[in-house]
Amino acid sequence: MADTTKKTIILFSGDLDRAIAAFIIANGAAAMGDEVTMFFTFWGLSLLRKPQAPKHKKGFLQGMFGAMMPSGSQQLGLSKMNFAGMGPRMMRRVMRQQNVMSLEDLIASAREQGVKMIACKMSMDFLGFREDELVDGLDFVGVATYLSEADEANVNLFI
Amino acid sequence: MADTTKKTIILFSGDLDRAIAAFIIANGAAAMGDEVTMFFTFWGLSLLRKPQAPKHKKGFLQGMFGAMMPSGSQQLGLSKMNFAGMGPRMMRRVMRQQNVMSLEDLIASAREQGVKMIACKMSMDFLGFREDELVDGLDFVGVATYLSEADEANVNLFI
Amino acid sequence: MADTTKKTIILFSGDLDRAIAAFIIANGAAAMGDEVTMFFTFWGLSLLRKPQAPKHKKGFLQGMFGAMMPSGSQQLGLSKMNFAGMGPRMMRRVMRQQNVMSLEDLIASAREQGVKMIACKMSMDFLGFREDELVDGLDFVGVATYLSEADEANVNLFI
Repeated sequence: MADTTKKTIILFSGDLDRAIAAFIIANGAAAMGDEVTMFFTFWGLSLLRKPQAPKHKKGFLQGMFGAMMPSGSQQLGLSKMNFAGMGPRMMRRVMRQQNVMSLEDLIASAREQGVKMIACKMSMDFLGFREDELVDGLDFVGVATYLSEADEANVNLFI
Repeated sequence: MADTTKKTIILFSGDLDRAIAAFIIANGAAAMGDEVTMFFTFWGLSLLRKPQAPKHKKGFLQGMFGAMMPSGSQQLGLSKMNFAGMGPRMMRRVMRQQNVMSLEDLIASAREQGVKMIACKMSMDFLGFREDELVDGLDFVGVATYLSEADEANVNLFI
Repeated sequence: MADTTKKTIILFSGDLDRAIAAFIIANGAAAMGDEVTMFFTFWGLSLLRKPQAPKHKKGFLQGMFGAMMPSGSQQLGLSKMNFAGMGPRMMRRVMRQQNVMSLEDLIASAREQGVKMIACKMSMDFLGFREDELVDGLDFVGVATYLSEADEANVNLFI
């Protein structure tokens, strides 16, 4: 058994179901006393967008990315059975009925439990997201930072 | 090198191709003498559904999930080139021609080799799957059990 | 902390965005002095196909796979917002504008840095890809080889 119980999760996906899975694992590990770092990259960044972000002048293509990607956790779709947005609504409704925490509650809980959230700077540059368009409390880092975190961990997942 | 060779695999996906990959890795590791735990969650649970499961009265939304998700390994689709079910049939046929084990054989082999299969209770509650709707021989657990298993392993994959 | 910093990445996906993520991690780790092994399987093999591969006589189904899967890194689609090929072109254009390395540069850099690339023989048999249809410098191996590599590593990702 390794002598660390730190966990890292790369959240590459912008799907609601995968984001929920990532945050359930992160919260579970934090509740067990593990250090947890989540690295948000590519579509996973959409989860962190402020619904009402400051407007910035952007190039055409980055403007397109901005317009097409979900603006925050409330707008995520499902990886399967999305049905033009019906699927996510169904999933959220069943989660409420089953007293499962919503994604937003899971994110808040992760923050409260000290889960470290870091955002991939290269993806941000690429997708044209500025720091003030994303939620507060993030670190903006490169892949080297992720790798250093992963070197200190015993479980590293790519979701 | 870590002093354990235990492996864990989270099977989140309900795609035939990803399920096959997961079971090939699990069987390979078990054949090398490694302890292996597979944690089935979200769409990955569809693989474990009995084709002829006992009927339960369910709420509308959970009834929908039950009706729309594949009932067992024979009904899985592909993550790419599914073509309304043509893709999986092609894949299965080529696998037979190439003497590659079918998914069902891979699952049976994993069981014979002692691969531990655990199903995520929270996903089951959420999707409305009862224990008797899933194949026999599973443990029904929470994320804490997965994390304990992962802490004892040196390779942990999310598929 | 483990006493190895070796990394392994299974590239299962044939999506441009996931392939880029895999190669950015691989290059980053190699630049930090880590040993890195990439295991290409299923759709991930499409990345390694020569655009002008020697023709082989194949069965109908394997001919279909060959015809439908992308022939090399230039033809990959996106996991999201593919828009019949518009998405990848947009992504590549923005990457150039942002001076992010292209996938082809990332692959070349990985080779230069000594990233070990191994291709899953079982997937190749299954999809009907011969060794001379894939780029040079690959090892053709089974899952046991991947597992041995992973046993020597401290970070193992499935992408």
